[in-house]
Formats: sequence, C-alpha cells, structure tokens
Amino acid sequence: MSGNSFGKLFTVTTFGESHGIAIGGVVDGCPPGLEITEEDLQVDLDRRKPGTSRYTTARREDDEVQILSGVFEGKTTGTSIGLLIKNKDQRSQDYGNIKDRFRPGHADYTYDQKYGSRDYRGGGRSSARETAIRVAAGGIAKKYLKEVHGIEVLGYLSQLGPVTVDKVDHSVTNTNPFFCPDESKLDALDEYMRDLKKSGDSIGAKVSVVAKNVPVGLGEPVFDRLDAEIAHAMMGINAVKGVEIGDGFDVINQKGSEHRDTLTPEGFTSNHAGGVLGGISTGQDIEVHMALKPTSSISVPGKTINKDNEEIDIVTKGRHDPCVGIRAVPIAEAMLALVLMDHLLRHRAQNAGVQSTTKPIAGQA
Amino acid sequence: MSGNSFGKLFTVTTFGESHGIAIGGVVDGCPPGLEITEEDLQVDLDRRKPGTSRYTTARREDDEVQILSGVFEGKTTGTSIGLLIKNKDQRSQDYGNIKDRFRPGHADYTYDQKYGSRDYRGGGRSSARETAIRVAAGGIAKKYLKEVHGIEVLGYLSQLGPVTVDKVDHSVTNTNPFFCPDESKLDALDEYMRDLKKSGDSIGAKVSVVAKNVPVGLGEPVFDRLDAEIAHAMMGINAVKGVEIGDGFDVINQKGSEHRDTLTPEGFTSNHAGGVLGGISTGQDIEVHMALKPTSSISVPGKTINKDNEEIDIVTKGRHDPCVGIRAVPIAEAMLALVLMDHLLRHRAQNAGVQSTTKPIAGQA
Amino acid sequence: MSGNSFGKLFTVTTFGESHGIAIGGVVDGCPPGLEITEEDLQVDLDRRKPGTSRYTTARREDDEVQILSGVFEGKTTGTSIGLLIKNKDQRSQDYGNIKDRFRPGHADYTYDQKYGSRDYRGGGRSSARETAIRVAAGGIAKKYLKEVHGIEVLGYLSQLGPVTVDKVDHSVTNTNPFFCPDESKLDALDEYMRDLKKSGDSIGAKVSVVAKNVPVGLGEPVFDRLDAEIAHAMMGINAVKGVEIGDGFDVINQKGSEHRDTLTPEGFTSNHAGGVLGGISTGQDIEVHMALKPTSSISVPGKTINKDNEEIDIVTKGRHDPCVGIRAVPIAEAMLALVLMDHLLRHRAQNAGVQSTTKPIAGQA
Amino acid sequence: MSGNSFGKLFTVTTFGESHGIAIGGVVDGCPPGLEITEEDLQVDLDRRKPGTSRYTTARREDDEVQILSGVFEGKTTGTSIGLLIKNKDQRSQDYGNIKDRFRPGHADYTYDQKYGSRDYRGGGRSSARETAIRVAAGGIAKKYLKEVHGIEVLGYLSQLGPVTVDKVDHSVTNTNPFFCPDESKLDALDEYMRDLKKSGDSIGAKVSVVAKNVPVGLGEPVFDRLDAEIAHAMMGINAVKGVEIGDGFDVINQKGSEHRDTLTPEGFTSNHAGGVLGGISTGQDIEVHMALKPTSSISVPGKTINKDNEEIDIVTKGRHDPCVGIRAVPIAEAMLALVLMDHLLRHRAQNAGVQSTTKPIAGQA
Repeated sequence: MSGNSFGKLFTVTTFGESHGIAIGGVVDGCPPGLEITEEDLQVDLDRRKPGTSRYTTARREDDEVQILSGVFEGKTTGTSIGLLIKNKDQRSQDYGNIKDRFRPGHADYTYDQKYGSRDYRGGGRSSARETAIRVAAGGIAKKYLKEVHGIEVLGYLSQLGPVTVDKVDHSVTNTNPFFCPDESKLDALDEYMRDLKKSGDSIGAKVSVVAKNVPVGLGEPVFDRLDAEIAHAMMGINAVKGVEIGDGFDVINQKGSEHRDTLTPEGFTSNHAGGVLGGISTGQDIEVHMALKPTSSISVPGKTINKDNEEIDIVTKGRHDPCVGIRAVPIAEAMLALVLMDHLLRHRAQNAGVQSTTKPIAGQA
Repeated sequence: MSGNSFGKLFTVTTFGESHGIAIGGVVDGCPPGLEITEEDLQVDLDRRKPGTSRYTTARREDDEVQILSGVFEGKTTGTSIGLLIKNKDQRSQDYGNIKDRFRPGHADYTYDQKYGSRDYRGGGRSSARETAIRVAAGGIAKKYLKEVHGIEVLGYLSQLGPVTVDKVDHSVTNTNPFFCPDESKLDALDEYMRDLKKSGDSIGAKVSVVAKNVPVGLGEPVFDRLDAEIAHAMMGINAVKGVEIGDGFDVINQKGSEHRDTLTPEGFTSNHAGGVLGGISTGQDIEVHMALKPTSSISVPGKTINKDNEEIDIVTKGRHDPCVGIRAVPIAEAMLALVLMDHLLRHRAQNAGVQSTTKPIAGQA
Repeated sequence: MSGNSFGKLFTVTTFGESHGIAIGGVVDGCPPGLEITEEDLQVDLDRRKPGTSRYTTARREDDEVQILSGVFEGKTTGTSIGLLIKNKDQRSQDYGNIKDRFRPGHADYTYDQKYGSRDYRGGGRSSARETAIRVAAGGIAKKYLKEVHGIEVLGYLSQLGPVTVDKVDHSVTNTNPFFCPDESKLDALDEYMRDLKKSGDSIGAKVSVVAKNVPVGLGEPVFDRLDAEIAHAMMGINAVKGVEIGDGFDVINQKGSEHRDTLTPEGFTSNHAGGVLGGISTGQDIEVHMALKPTSSISVPGKTINKDNEEIDIVTKGRHDPCVGIRAVPIAEAMLALVLMDHLLRHRAQNAGVQSTTKPIAGQA
Repeated sequence: MSGNSFGKLFTVTTFGESHGIAIGGVVDGCPPGLEITEEDLQVDLDRRKPGTSRYTTARREDDEVQILSGVFEGKTTGTSIGLLIKNKDQRSQDYGNIKDRFRPGHADYTYDQKYGSRDYRGGGRSSARETAIRVAAGGIAKKYLKEVHGIEVLGYLSQLGPVTVDKVDHSVTNTNPFFCPDESKLDALDEYMRDLKKSGDSIGAKVSVVAKNVPVGLGEPVFDRLDAEIAHAMMGINAVKGVEIGDGFDVINQKGSEHRDTLTPEGFTSNHAGGVLGGISTGQDIEVHMALKPTSSISVPGKTINKDNEEIDIVTKGRHDPCVGIRAVPIAEAMLALVLMDHLLRHRAQNAGVQSTTKPIAGQA
C-alpha cells in the first residue's frame, strides 16, 4: 500500500475517486517565496478538463482548484500545500450497470481482485479523473521551474492512430483541441476523429514532451537516474504502455558511430540521447515520448465476465474520450515538471558550491 | 543524492566503481527462512560476467560474490544481507588517456559537471560493472519468487540491429552467447557480430523479459503502479532508451476493439496489456521490452572535447562489448525480479486476509 | 523539505495552518474492508478539540472531519483516504500584533529564519491545530488495531506540574477534563489549574500512553526499531521535550539484575522494558511516557525582539491553554496508533507464514 | 522489513552480525569533494572499540574500517561509499550455550518470535557490534559538518549509576576511559566500577551530546522535525530507554515564565529548549540526553525459559561491558552527526537563496 505519493523532496500525494465528493492532494516541499494563485494552476487544468471539445468526454467538470494551505499573502510559505477540486457532474447512475461486471481493458477486474471490492462508480480511483490533481501539482512545479530557472516543459500530440506529426511548432499546440503542433495535420485529425466517433471505436496515440533549459547535472545514479524517474512518471499515467527517451526504440538498429552525440566547444552537435547521459541531464533538451492505448470504453459490442464468472455481453455507454491520448498532453507535462522539480531540489542539496573546472558547454547546436 | 537504493520493502542499495577495490550492496527486507547460497547467485553472475565469449569485452572477472551477513545455517534470517564482489582485472592504466576528455555517448561529461570531478577509471560508478550487484540481489529475489510462489522471470534477446527474433523458446536462450531464444537466428547473429567487430563499430538491441505465474493484485496505484515501477527499473539499466509493457508502441495505431483483452470464465483470450491493467497485475504473463543503445566505446574515430574545452580526436581502445544489449539480459531479469519481489511484499502487507468474492480467472488461454 | 508525511506503509500526510481555510490530510495504506465513518473519528477529535473546558483555549472549533475519498459503502476500499476539517473560528485579527515580533518559546523566529517569512496568524503551520488531522488519521488506525487485532491504545495525564498521578484507572481518564486516570487527584488538579490561570502563567505536564495486546514481533531493526519510531512520533508532537519507553530515565541508576525482565513459561514477570526488546515488541504492554513543556503564550510580561532586531516587551493575549499537556493525550494516542499500524503492516509484509517453533509466552503476569 | 537504512538524503544502510564474516554499510549522499581517509574514521572507531579498558568487554577487535568505493584520489566523488569491517575475534563457541535459551533483557526472544529463528552467536544482528558501522558513517558526517560548517558534535558520559557529572569540560572527555567530562569524578567512577565488576552486576548510565555552531533553520516540520529525528536516532541506539532535548523531563514542573528562552538582539539569554523550537534549530547548541539501561548479560544468576518453554537457570558468562553506556558516547555522537548532516542537505535543497529579512541573532549568551 501507500503508493499515492510521488517524489522524494518535492512530494505530491493524491486522493479521490471519479465520482466521490472531491479529489485532492498535498504538495510537500515547495520552496518558499514562489508567487502562486489558483488562476496559475487553472490554466493547465482547463487544458486537461473534460467537455471542452467534441473529441473528449461530454462529462462537464469546472475543475476549479482550491489552494487550502501553504500559500500566504500570495506566496508559498515552504509548508505543505493542500489542493482540492470538488466533483460536480457525478452521474453515478450511469455506472450502476458496471457494478457487477468487469469492463475489458479497464482496471475493474484487477482492483476487485486486489482489494476484494471496488468503488465501481466511473472507475473509482482507477479513473483518469485523479490526474487533474497531478496537473494542479505540476502547475506549481512548472511555475517554479520557469520563474527561477527558465525551464519550460512543452507537450504535444505527436501521433494519433495513423496520423503522424511532421513538424513541431510549440506555438500551434494550444491553438487546437488535439494539442497538435503541426497545423498541416489538423484537417486529417479532424476527419479521422469524426469517422472514429461514428464507428464507436477508439484509437491510440503518441504524446511527446520536451523540457528546455534544463541545467546539466540533474539525476541521481544508479537507481534514481533522471531517465528512470521520467519513465516511472510517464508509465504511471493512465493508458501509457511505452516510454522513450531521445531516439528510444530506434536505437535498436543504430550503430555506435551513428548514435553517439559529438561534443564540441560550442555544444553537442546532435541529441540522440534525448538530453540524458548516464542518468544525468546533459543540458540539452529533455525529449520524452510515450504511447497511449486506445480507450477501452467503446460502443463496439464485446464480451466479458461478471462477478459470478459468467460470460456476458458488454457495450460501454456513457461519456468517454475516443482518444485518451489527447488529454494526456497536459498530464505528461505535469509529470515531467514534477520529476524535474524533485531532481532540481535533490541536486541542489548535494552539490551546493560544487563546480566542475570545466564550464558547461552550450545546448544542442 | 542518495539515489543508490531500489525498492521500498525489499530494498537493494549498491556501491562500487568499475576499477575500485570492490563492488557490493545490501539487500534489506528478504523474508527469513529462504535457503540461499553463494552458488545460487553465481549462476546469473556467470551469465552476466564479461569475458565469456568473443562477443563481449575481454575483461576477465570471476565475479565471485560473497554473502557477508543475513544468512545463517544456510537460510536467510530476515536481517540485511551484505554482498561483496572484489574487482580483479583492474587495468587502470587502460584508462589514463580518458582522464581529461569526455567520451561521446558516455557519462564522463555529465558526471564531471554534476560532481565537479569523477573517478575516470573505466567509467567509475557509471560503468555497467555495478550491475553485477543488481544481478546478485536479483538472484535472491528470483529464488524467493520461484520457491515460494512459483514465479519465473525469463529474459531473452529479441532483436540485435536488423536481426529480429521470430520465435521464443526459453529452453534455447541459455544455450548460446546471445541469449537468443530462436535457434534459427544464431547463424545470422554470429555473422552480423563478426562483421560488426571487424568494422570497429557497435550496435543496439532489444531485450525482453517475461514473468510467469505472477499472482493477480501486485502494484500500488496511483503512482507506484506495477508498470510504472517496472519502467523505472528498466530505464535505470545502463544504455536503455525505451521501455514497453505488452504491445507498447504498437498501441498508437490500435483500435480499442482490437486492443482490449477479453475476459472469459476460462481466462483472458489475449494479452495486449502485457499482464498489467490499471497498474495492477492481471495474473497473466508480465511482458516487458526494452531498447538498448549501441556501445559508445568504439574504435571508429570521432571528435569530442577535453576538460579545457578544446576539440580533440577520440578512438576508444580497450575492452568493450560491441553490443551491450546482450549482457543486459540477466540484468533485466534481475530488475524485474526485484520489482516483483518488492510488490509481492507490499501487497502482502496490505491485503492479508482480503479476498475478492470473485475467484481469479486463469491466465492467458 | 517534504517533512509532512509519517509512516512507510500506513502513511499520513498533512497540510494546513492554524488560521487558513482548512486543515487536512491523506491516509494512504489503510487495508480495504474496514468499516469507518466520520463519527468514528469524531470521538477523538472531540476529546482534543478546543473550548471544551475552562482549562483549555476558548477558541471554538467544531473540528468536524469530512472523509472525502477511500471509503465506499461504509468501508475502506484500499485507496487513499482524504480528510478535511474546515477552520471556523479564525480570528486573525487577534494575531496581527505578532506579525513583526518573535514570541519567546514559539517557532516564530525559527520559521522566519528557515523560510524567510511565515504565516504569522496563530502560529500558522507551527500551531498545534494541525494535530487535529493526526488525531483523525490515528482514529482510523485505532479502529483497525482494535477490530482486527484487539489492540487498545490508552493515553492519560500522568503528571501536571507538581501533581502526580498515583493510580491508573483507564475507566476514569475520559470522565474528567484533565484525562486524569486517578480520581483522587481531580481536586488537586482543579485547584492547581485555577490558581495557575489567575497567575497568567502556564505549566508543563507528563503524558503516558499504553498499548495493550500488541503482538510480539513488531519493529524493524536496526534503525526502524519500534521504540525508535515511537520516540520519533512522540518527540514530533508540539511541546514534547522528552520521551521514555518503560522505565525510561530510571534505568540510569538501575542494576542489570534489577532491570532485566524474567521470562517464565507463563510470561514475563515484570515489564521494565516497556514492551520492547531489541527494538521489537515483546507481546507485553507498550509503555510510553513523554514530557510536555509549559505553553509559551502567557500573560506574564516578558521581553523579546522584533523583526528589526529591537528589544520589545511582550504579553501574549488571546486564547491559549494554560497546560498544553492536557489536550496532548488524544494526540499521543493517535501517534502511537499510527506507529503500531505502520509496523503491523511492515511485519505482515515480511513474515507471512513465518512461525517460531517456540510459542509466544503470555503477557506480563 | 527493510529497516536498516537511516536518513533521507544522507542515507546510511548497514548489515552484519556480531559473529559473522564482517559488518559493513553504504553511505549514500555524501557531497563530492570532501577529503576523507580511513584514518579519519578510525579515530572514533577506536574510541568505541571493545577491549580498550578494564571497564569494557575483553573481546578484541581492531575495528579496522576499509573504504571500498566513493572516494577517489583522497576525496569523495559524490557516489555511494562502501564501508567494511571484518570480524576477527569471533569466538562463536562462547555462544553455543545460548542457542536454545532466551537471555532476559536481550533480543533473543523477540528475534526468535519475529523471524522464526535467529543467528544466536553473540546476539547476531541485535548485538551492539553493528554500531561500529554507524560510528564509521557518522565519522564522514562529522568531518563534513566540521570542515564545511564548523559544526562540532561532542558527547560525554553525564551519569553512571549514582555518580553524576557536575561540570562539562569537553577537553577532559577523551582523556579517560569513561568519556567523563568532569575530572573530579574519575576516582568515584573508578571505584564504583571496580565494585560493580566484583559483584558481577551491571549499571545504567546517562549520556549527553551537544552540537555547536548548528545554523538556524534545520528540521522539516511537522513530522520530520529536528527533535523528532534526533529522538528516533537516539532511541535507536541499543539499550537507550529515554531521550531528552534541552530541559527534557524537567519541563513537567516548569512554569511558562521560567521555561521560555528570551530573545535579545545579542541572542537568546538561556537554552531551556535545547536548541530546537517548533522542530527547527535555533542556532543555539543542540542539547540531547539519553538514558541507557544496564547490560543484561551479567553473572548474577537468574531465571529464564528455553525454546521448549521450560524454566531454566541462566548465568551469562563471556565478555561483556558492565556499563554499556560508556561506549555509547561515540555512537551517540555519530547518530547526532548523521541527523544533522541529513537535515543540512534537506534544508539546503529547499531554501537555496531564501533569506529572512531578519538577521540571525547570536547563539546563547
């Protein structure tokens, strides 16, 4: 038990079920003196929240976050920060029919077996609804990283089913409901999603996140390597089935002479490594990719079993995203921000005053 | 700092540099009563150790592990287990020439920047040599998992450069120096590696691990999900750049109707999920894949910088694996065993006496 | 940072300031299936809450706790439990006058120096108000310990200034506002406190807690010994300056022949050890004592400095307990329950199925 | 399980039994650049080691510590430090007679019940022998604290049975085998101990430790308060039954007007608090006291039970300290140094660049 905390020095602990009274959490370890308001956190919550486009679930939640503690006269005090989001649109009745059955692809069966019973309303704790608090907590980390260190964390949709993104223009990402950074692919995405909704099916996606201006030196080998903690964070996002740093699975068929990033006095000449060498940030962009499975809740009929181990038919009605990957973009940003924040503090603890005689080289040329 | 421990209840803490006096570690949390000898651990150490074939480094290390504590009259006592492997073939002179330069693709630059200096002999702490202790610790976990729960953890090479494996026969894996489970590919591997060595270059690889007979219920959402911890463990292995659970990156272009694994009274009919749903084991095989980058130490000439930020030529001489992926097989097994062991204990803590009214269904049909 | 969590497997994380919007917390790791209601937790909250007698602060707080998650259909689900208590009687204006000065004996100066500023309203995070959440969380632990293992955790006032308790009758403790277990001392306490209030001064106290029916075997040497964790828990209660297990400081002048508790087939013949040997519970009563300093907020005039480092006079007005030790009784119970709960889970993880060939002997004769 | 680690950022993990091959440990989180040699650590090991005077056990151990990793060219590298001390004088035969019996006052019974069996040779893991590694690890912390921050950690014997210490002169402490800081009490101690040895009995003791030049601001409320962690550390030392900070148990009968330490522009005028307010260091001396029970191994005959639950006679022969409190002095210093080191790093992580507008006042006048 007790798996609801993330981070060692900048620690986020969350609670809350999809259709309970509220979801919430505690951010512990935020340095004092950071100006933060609920509005700051709302920006990303609004990006993640349901009901914003026809491509996401119709459930309507304002996702208004309340800061209950740890901020005084507009600034963090260094004490723990309580966060709360009340659930509003809790149509529990929608979910009575899943009480006694295990939806394929969902956590119904595993929660039931692990705990002996489960809060079946909308997936309970296994619902992606809890990620709203990750986004709020990540918002605090993002603000600190940006204001104190100039670090930016930028996510985007890099593939949706067969539609791949060819060009990454971060200024485009937030102008469309797909978080797609390539304007030329918006029509293709729109068309694909319209057809998909008609078919009642769902589709997987690839999401990428990049962190810019990360200083060299973050990561604590040999187990708490920066890449290992990023993998933990990303694979811990609902529906994620694969994580890559830098070239990822492409390295399988790369030669050493091809993969290694050459250092020059002006900086690295390439970034196959994705900004991490030996588990420690290089000062280049941190590049992370992840694969998200298609939503399991679809209206295409299927088979499953009920609690009495009997075979039954299943058609998931209700309000669901046909591609959960889309709304995962702000969640992935939040998780990367949490990892970087935690490792910034850990590195700071260890190395105050330590300086290499070699100056850091510039980022990727 | 303090990133050299792994696991919450079954905790492994390691120390040691490539060319120091010794490497070692502490396994804390092993239940009492397990029969264990140094010979038990030696089996996997011998599988990982260098110098066993012409496809691995020529460095010769016996990798003889000593159990210093925690075992009495042949059985674990429940107290912490000290492990020690003395370094023998420490040709430090081989490495004097890398003292003032940063080998591309290695952790030389990041360690230097992080810590202000580094033990440059053979990569110091960043060398994969430290993984020998992970293998020894994993051996304890593997024995417990096997003897008490019948769980088996089986790794294999699934791709090496362009050579893919078509068939997985676990009885073949340990009969060849590639850990290849497909007998029909041994000639192709042999030929590819011979050419590669001639060229002085290196190549990436894909390694897979499967765990059989894992009970349903392991994993602690929402952050310490089983898949998240596996991703942490695997991405923390030297050279790993990508991790997949189940279908991994293939899910990007899968439909929901295609991906979801149907439950029947006789068990699941497929295992796209790779044995984890909602971060909790399903009782099916846990299936993990990872991508390992090509060795950065190659004799193909390249450019880099020295500590004075001057551009210099580099040709890595010395003893290196042309494909680090090969020897990663026992390491990947060890890390998966450590994750499963830790989560077995964590689940046990929480749920003693808890039983679902639904009986677990059988594994994958 | 991030020091607001307690426990490894049964983990409590808290937030909230004395005069903020609310205080709250997360209980992570409670086994599923425990019946729990807000009323269950209210019992101890009411024992701790201010304004219940003339011997405690006049601040009025209902301390009504809300369970926000982790409980479904009346039972814990195994997921994290969100707890919330809204602050009501937040007379911040009372505290404007302490904004720029450091009250002696309080944490004003240390918080200001540590964090660079502080929430000065009523002591902010350093106020004992946060302990209400500890009491609520401890209530969950107490219920589990009692219902599943028959363990009872019983606190009482054992000394208040010069008034010592001679007899411990647990049935008396909750019948008086002093939590005094000795009926014959109630008049003396009443008289002492009346005089004390008149003088405007405050007084220290000794509080004791005993845990009954604790099984043999709890505690994880060598650092997470049961007694060490109890000491951590108790010294972490506001105002506590000393902690004893069993005979405590009396052992300084004891002989070995006097101190050692003899084992007989019928059980131990004495309990000088206080129920812990080698950091592991013996099966006897766990006996803990602690010393609490007098309230620093008194109306006896004193000197201190302000933020400009100038000497000033100080007289603390406002609502304060003349003896904080009294209300510490339910807090001490809660903390002991949290330690026992955490160690029960930790021991369970490790030793499922392990049995000594020696049967446990009975408790203290 | 897994209770053999101490500290969050500066983490010590230990292993080893009294009569096993070796004891050892890992220090993880030491900042790079600290000059350290085995000789540095040997100083305190020699103070703790057995066989140095007629008042301690006659067991002879050189306690020669080996640094196996983490130090390169005389300086720490920032990687984990492996420590090893081989056991030499392992007269296991001395202990065959305790194999099947539970020595009163020892951990024999609790280890046997907890783990189902135990390494009975000399107490196995429960022997104070393991504290040698704590002393070695603490030596690293002490050196860092001293060299980088000017912090000194000074322990001494403050009472032995009825002999109390009246005057603390730290220059006297290490000139006598009692670690007594009061020269005028050496004869009384000598006489008392001679009589005690003749009687075959043992005696308790009080040990104190003070830390000087600790900066204001260490400690992480509300659970990881500095005083709480000190209590954890001290109560975790074998035989300790009570811990006090500052005035400790004397506060029970103190008035608020008497206890509170007045702040003046020149510093605090007293230190009843023992250097901690609200769980955070004040900048004054940290003052800690602890009570150690008398050795349970005495030659005064007693009763106990064997593994078959039969009553038997017991007379402990062998080599034992008549007062374990004496050799606890360097152990207590080590543990306080470990706590301070850990909290120094934790505070540094959090508050880099944070500065109160109020300047710290001087220490105790």
